[in-house]
Amino acid sequence: MATDTTPRETRRQADRSRETRRKLMEATVECLVEHGWAGTTTTVVAERAGVSRGAQLHHFRTRGELVAAAVEHLGVESVLHLKERARQVNGSTVAVVELIADYYASDLFTAALELWVAARTDPELKTVVVPLEVRLGRETHRLAVELLNADESKPGVREAVQITLDLVRGLALANQLTDDGKRRKRIIGHWARMLEDSL
Amino acid sequence: MATDTTPRETRRQADRSRETRRKLMEATVECLVEHGWAGTTTTVVAERAGVSRGAQLHHFRTRGELVAAAVEHLGVESVLHLKERARQVNGSTVAVVELIADYYASDLFTAALELWVAARTDPELKTVVVPLEVRLGRETHRLAVELLNADESKPGVREAVQITLDLVRGLALANQLTDDGKRRKRIIGHWARMLEDSL
Repeated sequence: MATDTTPRETRRQADRSRETRRKLMEATVECLVEHGWAGTTTTVVAERAGVSRGAQLHHFRTRGELVAAAVEHLGVESVLHLKERARQVNGSTVAVVELIADYYASDLFTAALELWVAARTDPELKTVVVPLEVRLGRETHRLAVELLNADESKPGVREAVQITLDLVRGLALANQLTDDGKRRKRIIGHWARMLEDSL
Repeated sequence: MATDTTPRETRRQADRSRETRRKLMEATVECLVEHGWAGTTTTVVAERAGVSRGAQLHHFRTRGELVAAAVEHLGVESVLHLKERARQVNGSTVAVVELIADYYASDLFTAALELWVAARTDPELKTVVVPLEVRLGRETHRLAVELLNADESKPGVREAVQITLDLVRGLALANQLTDDGKRRKRIIGHWARMLEDSL
């Protein structure tokens, strides 16, 4: 490809481009958490990110594309963060299940929930969100298996891991309108002991 | 109170009034399920119910009031329906947990989810929805205890009932964008066996 920029300039441009993308995605998640799907318009996000509408359109053609990319980006970051925290805890089943429950009861879940609910009645958005849900679900399952040191070839172990993830999803939902942290901790503690027996 | 209507006419008026309320609430739930919160405006609901705007305003002053009443109405109806179905099944723990999971993975859950998510970023709506969430949660817990014939004075039983409800809530959420019925059945079966040991 013919270009009049030096390699260093090309690198700098790529860095700036990545930085713009990151700013847009982070502003999107903040908007989703603060204002919900209806309040997360491309105009509001561009303003919040301090990015021109032209630059935004260069990176993300539609609102759906932008929001899905933002939730996926946060998902990847959250997985890294969770792995890092898992290295710091003692590794007991209770501690790991508490970490996973905290990972769900976070901005990632709130932002994803806004997106999932909007996608239910928006066919175009749904085509973007369904594959994202599959990817995030698969990645979270893999991570849970790894952190719990679970051997899924043993009967019942795969189901027990899935129960863990569906349970923390249900608990995260119960935490959206009011702080349900105290009840969550008690239930997680109880489930973790049952899970330990299953593993 | 001075009135020129006979008792029979008063009764007829009360019947019509109840019927109008019921029509409005049913149209609201249908709108929530089909179009989501954003598409559930008072105008759309009145049209769908075939009720004049004046009559609608007489029964429900705000959109929030209408939608919360509709979800509560559906909640009460669903509890009755669930009790009726529970009488018809064999009463095994698996059968009861499957019934509860089906109760969650229904229009009631979808409508409530729309309302809960909208309330998160709408302070006025939130003041209506939080007490409703508490009432529905309490009622569902009581119902689960009754159907499972659970003795909550035994250690661990209360937690096991709560895990059941949070689990089916998580499973219902996983069913919003795609049909997750097959996986749900397998997980419910596994959990029901664990629950049976706890009870």
